[in-house]
Amino acid sequence: MKLAIYGYGNLGRGVECAIRQARDAELVGVFTRRTPESVKPLTGAPVFAAADLLQYKDKIDLVIICGGSATDLPKMTPVLARDFNVIDSFDTHANIPQHFDAVDAAAKESGHIALISCGWDPGMFSLNRLYASSILPDGADYTFWGRGVSQGHSDAVRRIDGVLDARQYTVPIEAALDAVRSGTMPELTARQKHLRECYVVAAEGADKARIEQEIKEMPNYFADYDTTVTFITKEEMQRDHASLPHGGFVIRTGKTGLNKEHTHVIEYKLKLDSNPEFTASVLVAFARAMCRKAARGETGCKTVFDVAPADLSPLTGPELRAHML
Amino acid sequence: MKLAIYGYGNLGRGVECAIRQARDAELVGVFTRRTPESVKPLTGAPVFAAADLLQYKDKIDLVIICGGSATDLPKMTPVLARDFNVIDSFDTHANIPQHFDAVDAAAKESGHIALISCGWDPGMFSLNRLYASSILPDGADYTFWGRGVSQGHSDAVRRIDGVLDARQYTVPIEAALDAVRSGTMPELTARQKHLRECYVVAAEGADKARIEQEIKEMPNYFADYDTTVTFITKEEMQRDHASLPHGGFVIRTGKTGLNKEHTHVIEYKLKLDSNPEFTASVLVAFARAMCRKAARGETGCKTVFDVAPADLSPLTGPELRAHML
Repeated sequence: MKLAIYGYGNLGRGVECAIRQARDAELVGVFTRRTPESVKPLTGAPVFAAADLLQYKDKIDLVIICGGSATDLPKMTPVLARDFNVIDSFDTHANIPQHFDAVDAAAKESGHIALISCGWDPGMFSLNRLYASSILPDGADYTFWGRGVSQGHSDAVRRIDGVLDARQYTVPIEAALDAVRSGTMPELTARQKHLRECYVVAAEGADKARIEQEIKEMPNYFADYDTTVTFITKEEMQRDHASLPHGGFVIRTGKTGLNKEHTHVIEYKLKLDSNPEFTASVLVAFARAMCRKAARGETGCKTVFDVAPADLSPLTGPELRAHML
Repeated sequence: MKLAIYGYGNLGRGVECAIRQARDAELVGVFTRRTPESVKPLTGAPVFAAADLLQYKDKIDLVIICGGSATDLPKMTPVLARDFNVIDSFDTHANIPQHFDAVDAAAKESGHIALISCGWDPGMFSLNRLYASSILPDGADYTFWGRGVSQGHSDAVRRIDGVLDARQYTVPIEAALDAVRSGTMPELTARQKHLRECYVVAAEGADKARIEQEIKEMPNYFADYDTTVTFITKEEMQRDHASLPHGGFVIRTGKTGLNKEHTHVIEYKLKLDSNPEFTASVLVAFARAMCRKAARGETGCKTVFDVAPADLSPLTGPELRAHML
């Protein structure tokens, strides 16, 4: 499969590496809205101007769109689906139905296929919620995130006056995980499920007490959580907080039996050294499935729910049945 | 969907309960090779002779075959696939390709659809092996079972002279799990991965030392493992070992990044109070998907790898995207 990367930030770099690990994938090039000469891909892949993408239409099986969910993807994915098979990692959960409809209309009209909201949440976590709730209809679902860096929360702290840099870790609370695993189906508040740890580089002379208070009282982001704030130096930030680890848990507990006397616990856990590289790896596996669907003449917008797992693997059906079933 | 149960042991009883929990499923009846009058279903479902199944052909969307893998299913599933859509839980991993071919030929010829090897291993564990290896091509897979009752190993102990009853628990070794989760991709022997705990009721006057030695030295089943043997009374067996718990772990660790500098751990864990009831719950969810595939005109033999997850849920596409993605 011949793949193009559209947008070259952390996720684009991850996709570049993941394509190199896929034995059946080839990277046509990186397409950027910046000056192509200013972009230096990790693997030396060719760089082209985003505006020139259409010139490469015949050389590309699928475009992996590596833009942000806030403003890039709602515009980019429907537009690119007019000319290409596409895949994105749109992760604003509340706006997925709207994004789906826009992409579906564009892809159906042009006869292309598109996959939105692919990654780990939405993505692999969604799949695990779906499998587990289909198997155990009488039960309850729980999703925990972390320990990992939340970009949105880190950005929120950085916007506070006097903050030079910040990193926010979302931390699942072990007691809540244990309560869920017990099968008692507890109702848990935001505060009971996650801690928020902030590491902050303050400007010289900034009022640290005021910064800490502003963080802890910030509505939506921090007010509903127990939050810790630790001031560190710029050097400590670079040394100890340069990577982007993440992960989390999807747990469903449910009952079966004549009188629902038996409890089952299904737990899916991710522990990721690099959030963007793992997301990229999921994207490349689903890109393979989308290329196969396109070859079968399928069109329109899909989600991870619509992909038969066999289509994700470079192995054949007989190989999968013999070695993986 | 109108479902029939073919065979009424532990698994058949589990399916009966699981059908009651599925809001879109109806149980046509239990079909048994025993005298129908001798079978008393938990929920009062009607019981018919297995030999009369064909008379109910027009009333049944799909037959869930609840026979054993050793001798029942290799014969039953291809035969029933001549007249019905069918699903089974065939779990002799080494013979899956052969079973698939036999069922596929029968189902294609008759225009029916069939799903084989559905449950949790093969089944949900297989799906997790496939997803994880597709996402992380540079990595290693590990499957651990337990703590849970292995029927095959329990039966092997029961065949020893002087043994009245036996229960064998397969127990994953925590140190091996931790080594796997560390991402070092260790090579582990059978002995390093699992312990085998046996609880045995011996006949009066039986030579317990000889029984213990015969268990521990039994090739394939026990010789390659650290095995404990505990002699208990018939009453203790009934009181403490009546249920059939099971579970296990599928873990894949893999590397990403330009120089494979980042490690990721994907872990899927099941903790099941009742092995047959959980297997039954998986069967009913996949029965739903098979009925939908049949309605779309698909035929032939499938595995869990061929099922798009959306087909497992009673929810619609828009509902799934809005609430579960």
